[in-house]
Amino acid sequence: MDLTLQAVARFLEERDSFLILTHKRPDGDTIGCAVALCLGLRRRGKTAWVLPNEDATALFGPYLGVTLAPQGFIPQTIVVVDTASEGLLPPSAQPYKGRVELCIDHHPSNEGYAALTHVEGDKAACGEVIYALLQLLLSPQSGEGAEVLLPQELALPLYLALSTDTGCFVYDNTSPNTHRIAGKLMETGIDAGWVNKRHFRTKSHTRLRVEGRIVETLELHQAGAIALATLTLEDMARLGAGEVDVEDIASFAGQLEGVQTAVTIREMAPGECRLSVRTGAGLNASRVCALLGGGGHAQASGCTVKGSVAQAKSAILEAIAAVQAEG
Amino acid sequence: MDLTLQAVARFLEERDSFLILTHKRPDGDTIGCAVALCLGLRRRGKTAWVLPNEDATALFGPYLGVTLAPQGFIPQTIVVVDTASEGLLPPSAQPYKGRVELCIDHHPSNEGYAALTHVEGDKAACGEVIYALLQLLLSPQSGEGAEVLLPQELALPLYLALSTDTGCFVYDNTSPNTHRIAGKLMETGIDAGWVNKRHFRTKSHTRLRVEGRIVETLELHQAGAIALATLTLEDMARLGAGEVDVEDIASFAGQLEGVQTAVTIREMAPGECRLSVRTGAGLNASRVCALLGGGGHAQASGCTVKGSVAQAKSAILEAIAAVQAEG
Repeated sequence: MDLTLQAVARFLEERDSFLILTHKRPDGDTIGCAVALCLGLRRRGKTAWVLPNEDATALFGPYLGVTLAPQGFIPQTIVVVDTASEGLLPPSAQPYKGRVELCIDHHPSNEGYAALTHVEGDKAACGEVIYALLQLLLSPQSGEGAEVLLPQELALPLYLALSTDTGCFVYDNTSPNTHRIAGKLMETGIDAGWVNKRHFRTKSHTRLRVEGRIVETLELHQAGAIALATLTLEDMARLGAGEVDVEDIASFAGQLEGVQTAVTIREMAPGECRLSVRTGAGLNASRVCALLGGGGHAQASGCTVKGSVAQAKSAILEAIAAVQAEG
Repeated sequence: MDLTLQAVARFLEERDSFLILTHKRPDGDTIGCAVALCLGLRRRGKTAWVLPNEDATALFGPYLGVTLAPQGFIPQTIVVVDTASEGLLPPSAQPYKGRVELCIDHHPSNEGYAALTHVEGDKAACGEVIYALLQLLLSPQSGEGAEVLLPQELALPLYLALSTDTGCFVYDNTSPNTHRIAGKLMETGIDAGWVNKRHFRTKSHTRLRVEGRIVETLELHQAGAIALATLTLEDMARLGAGEVDVEDIASFAGQLEGVQTAVTIREMAPGECRLSVRTGAGLNASRVCALLGGGGHAQASGCTVKGSVAQAKSAILEAIAAVQAEG
């Protein structure tokens, strides 16, 4: 059942003993929403915890702090934030499948798996929804349109949520509402600069050298519309690079001016290459990769090719041409 | 003489036939401020033009559009935006030196070279000051605290100003006021995504190669807290790089993990280097650069050193040490 935000606030006031779940491979939005909601509920006198997520990287440790549920906590109310489908819950959340009472989300594709659902599909971050909810929970006496400054412990994770889901306010999903709320969160005196530095302005020397190497390998096809980037075992060894240094490297080549399709070829073992394909509108990356035994999303897919880097290049260019020829 | 913003608005209402000057090597802030102020003055029935700036890259062409002063225009009132010293005016502005009547700026180091000066040193972008000024000019009848939505032709260049001076809201200078105004500007319906893609999400092949070169030159000092990056005339020539390819390159080295002070040294001519210093909270970049005859903001300053790149490196390391020794 779909609930209004006011009904969500009433539901939360009526219940207690909350466990809040985040999605697998968690990002700043799901983490920030869970932490802010948890601490907001505690301020209303409730017991509330965030379920530890085994996928959460060390980057999110400082935010989760005092919110992580202790072993043995038996919740009465299961709430999920920023998660479109039950299939996106991490292994640790498996015991709660089919028992989710409330889901608060901003994905238009939300599958309605919870008993009660509130989705605002026009919001850049689920954090914008949680911000409005916390306004209702923490200033219930305020008049229409009144807005309170949230406590900093709530404002910081919400700033994390907004900033990470918008690439720090640069993606097209950023709206006037995103900026307005970001301003209100910063007014509380939180150290937004610390969040920005941590999530958007820090790269390891090795990462920078990997990116430099990617640039050296860039090969353009179809008048610059297709970019091929490669990273060989020899490159990785020479740069001393590990998996942490190449995270999301597939999106790097796509920023090159004029490029509509970016292919990143990683030699994973001698004679075996993993290809990541990122496309704009106009070419279905999933169809391209399917021709080589892979798949994924329309604008982000992958496949594995047995052969050398040169053979992988030929194979992917042929696959792209074949899908283009389909029209 | 220092003027309040209200006095600036009155001054502009009293005068006419404005020529607005921008600083040399113009960025989005000085361009955006000049364009918004020019079009705002025209909406008050004034004649106003922006002086063509020979340093302006093609990136700014679409914003300048109808504002560029025709040859032979004889102004009565010279206004400068976002420019801390007369020495920072471009060659085309030389005829107006000593004749600047009004300077509107956000650099605390502003030298007060204009007859009338309004500086708000706490603002991330001069665009925030111009936004408030345009509120006064275009809604003079409004009550205290009232805020009008600006016309899009003013909102777009102001969004350019705010976003470019904050690295799209990621730099530490970003304040609640910056976000609040960005939200108000986006509410007008401007295509902020177009600005963001243009200025923050697209890099030329040459730019990527310049960044790769910067990574190769990185030199660490003080246990990795200081990074020196260099870009020589030979680098620029070999990469075929122009000014457009090195815009805001000074902020690149600062993203290296652990770096607190990033110095980017550009050889501008044989025996002449331009240094840009970007610091975290612990070191005043403006004080460092002042020791070498430059200046700017506490966390972003610059200076010119006569000598080789090696000499410039020694000079800046000494200046940093001297400011550190001050405690």
